Amino acid sequence: MRVLILGGDGYLGWPTAMDFAAKGHDVWVMDNYMRRNIARETCSEALMPNPNLHDRAEIFHALTGGKIHVVVGNCADYRLLSKVFVECQPETVIHYAEQPSAPYSMRGFDEARLTFNNNLNATFNLIWAVMEHAPSCHIVKLGTMGEYGTPNIDIEEGWLEVEHNGRKDKFLFPRQAGSLYHTTKVLDTDLLWFYVRTHGLRVTDLMQGPVYGLASEQSEMDERLLPNFHYDDIFGTVVNRFLVQAVASVPLTIYGKGGQTRGYLNLKDTLQCVELAMNTPVEPGKLRILNQFTEQFSVKQLAEKVQRVGNAMGLNVQIKNIDNPRKELEEHYYNAKHYGLLEMGLKPHYMTEEVIAEMLEMVARYKSGIDRNKIEPRVRWKQQS
Amino acid sequence: MRVLILGGDGYLGWPTAMDFAAKGHDVWVMDNYMRRNIARETCSEALMPNPNLHDRAEIFHALTGGKIHVVVGNCADYRLLSKVFVECQPETVIHYAEQPSAPYSMRGFDEARLTFNNNLNATFNLIWAVMEHAPSCHIVKLGTMGEYGTPNIDIEEGWLEVEHNGRKDKFLFPRQAGSLYHTTKVLDTDLLWFYVRTHGLRVTDLMQGPVYGLASEQSEMDERLLPNFHYDDIFGTVVNRFLVQAVASVPLTIYGKGGQTRGYLNLKDTLQCVELAMNTPVEPGKLRILNQFTEQFSVKQLAEKVQRVGNAMGLNVQIKNIDNPRKELEEHYYNAKHYGLLEMGLKPHYMTEEVIAEMLEMVARYKSGIDRNKIEPRVRWKQQS
Repeated sequence: MRVLILGGDGYLGWPTAMDFAAKGHDVWVMDNYMRRNIARETCSEALMPNPNLHDRAEIFHALTGGKIHVVVGNCADYRLLSKVFVECQPETVIHYAEQPSAPYSMRGFDEARLTFNNNLNATFNLIWAVMEHAPSCHIVKLGTMGEYGTPNIDIEEGWLEVEHNGRKDKFLFPRQAGSLYHTTKVLDTDLLWFYVRTHGLRVTDLMQGPVYGLASEQSEMDERLLPNFHYDDIFGTVVNRFLVQAVASVPLTIYGKGGQTRGYLNLKDTLQCVELAMNTPVEPGKLRILNQFTEQFSVKQLAEKVQRVGNAMGLNVQIKNIDNPRKELEEHYYNAKHYGLLEMGLKPHYMTEEVIAEMLEMVARYKSGIDRNKIEPRVRWKQQS
Repeated sequence: MRVLILGGDGYLGWPTAMDFAAKGHDVWVMDNYMRRNIARETCSEALMPNPNLHDRAEIFHALTGGKIHVVVGNCADYRLLSKVFVECQPETVIHYAEQPSAPYSMRGFDEARLTFNNNLNATFNLIWAVMEHAPSCHIVKLGTMGEYGTPNIDIEEGWLEVEHNGRKDKFLFPRQAGSLYHTTKVLDTDLLWFYVRTHGLRVTDLMQGPVYGLASEQSEMDERLLPNFHYDDIFGTVVNRFLVQAVASVPLTIYGKGGQTRGYLNLKDTLQCVELAMNTPVEPGKLRILNQFTEQFSVKQLAEKVQRVGNAMGLNVQIKNIDNPRKELEEHYYNAKHYGLLEMGLKPHYMTEEVIAEMLEMVARYKSGIDRNKIEPRVRWKQQS
């Protein structure tokens, strides 16, 4: 399969590129290094150093013989994206090319505008590049479970059948997200669904929960191939924050009450899911939506898991509740369906104590690089006035 | 009330400006003439000549003594919009500043991108200009009934209470629009709703149906103050097309079967609705959604109305069904609620035979300017491949 990965330098993009190349696919990656630039500007660099894309592709090639075509450039530049489509002629395009930090998107006008324009223009351009240059290409788009927010009803897999005043119809499941970043993904879904209906695109929209995991099969051969690992308040997810805090003997910081529940998955499962989506493309004119996670926890449960494993390893792990910098429900109903990918063959890797221990061990090897100033929340969801 | 009208040169913007100024409000208008430029580029000029904003404001001032502050510029330019906000310090902002043609938005990449960027950036910038410079300002945003599409259930006023697996919640009413233009308004609503929830904005989102009407109180004094009247396939609504076809002895063209049903309203009622919204602002943190139309017809019913009145006036009005250039349901359920504005005091002006006769008479005076080549559909909703 000829596959173009937009956002190929990212936490998911790079492991996907290696995984697919190792399996014999013809892999192209495109990235504008936006995350790296924002990380530098906001003092939020990753814990382990990550060589640039060209260097990583060379290291990967030297180790495995596999080839990854690298394009450094911006998907929001339509001329360049068109050129890449014409050269690559992808059968599948994986769209990870979005500014992924919720706190960054809430920091101020410039950060909001960058997030809004980058994410929406990348999706808009992708749609048109497919229509103009590769109309039968299957788009696999990374959405987020955050699009749904925390409704008081069961979260279905993308769609909701509604009965109202005795009549029925089926709609996109209601979406209301908790940050501008997550909202751009709601808008992406609306836009994709429009062009699917009117122009016969083929789209799989993956509603993914927070991903954890520091390694993939390839990075075990050479740590320079590790995915980027952020533990800061801008790019770090809650799992990474807890791992680093446990290792650095800083109390695990729970935002507010800690009842915030989400569906999580292992990076290995993201790779499986994206591959499953790629290998079974949808028909033209279809939008397939899959909820991509394997198990649900509250933030409090997560902290307690890390604490239990950390303490068993001889760390002294404390937990501390701090003021929530976000506007979100801290105790809420949450029951999200996720049967589609399991039916397609996903074999989950759950967050066992062994998995947590492995992650803690990996982080411990980089302990000297941990900067505690990066961990505390620096951005608040606030009324601007 | 100090009111800033974005898109003040438009079919609704200009009559709103005059109406509010005549009532003693402090009125500012801003417009970048995008519609005029597109009309020239696509051979879709209005039937009657419309002087530019500065000239119209002078004519209005000479006739009535009323003052309208004019700013010619682009809301998608944040620096300029901020400057206007700082100077004007609006208590209400009316947001009409969007590329309003569905066919134009479906014409090709450049037109789609212009529509997408203009409409989304105008809304994004407006939100931030309010947060940064006038945080208690009430935003009155023109949405469209087209956001809802044609669902198989009753269309409620903005929100839908859902019962699902024994639990309940309330969501934005499902939206799926039939053109990219309409889709940008869906995205606007999503974006406004996000910032209302997280930053306490005050927003009224008016889901408006197609508007008809050629005159307002002020334009009866001087025809140079008429709202722009487009009958072409790009900016003309179906009502205008039928009026012009009836006058020009061209058969009224029904796209497809003609069962397409929508909620319509008189321009006089738009002015009432916007004023009602302005005079009763919502609280901070509230998004009020009102369905803005007064009566429902199918396209076929509309054609028959115009035919009946035209024939009674001695015209020979024929009706012709042509291939539908759009992708839309041509026969469908449609029952849209619209009680909010009536409860607030709206006194509807319905589309009586007298109203149709008056419009036909006005168009007949400009008969010599009608260009039949502008009427037939030039844009098709097509698969791009």
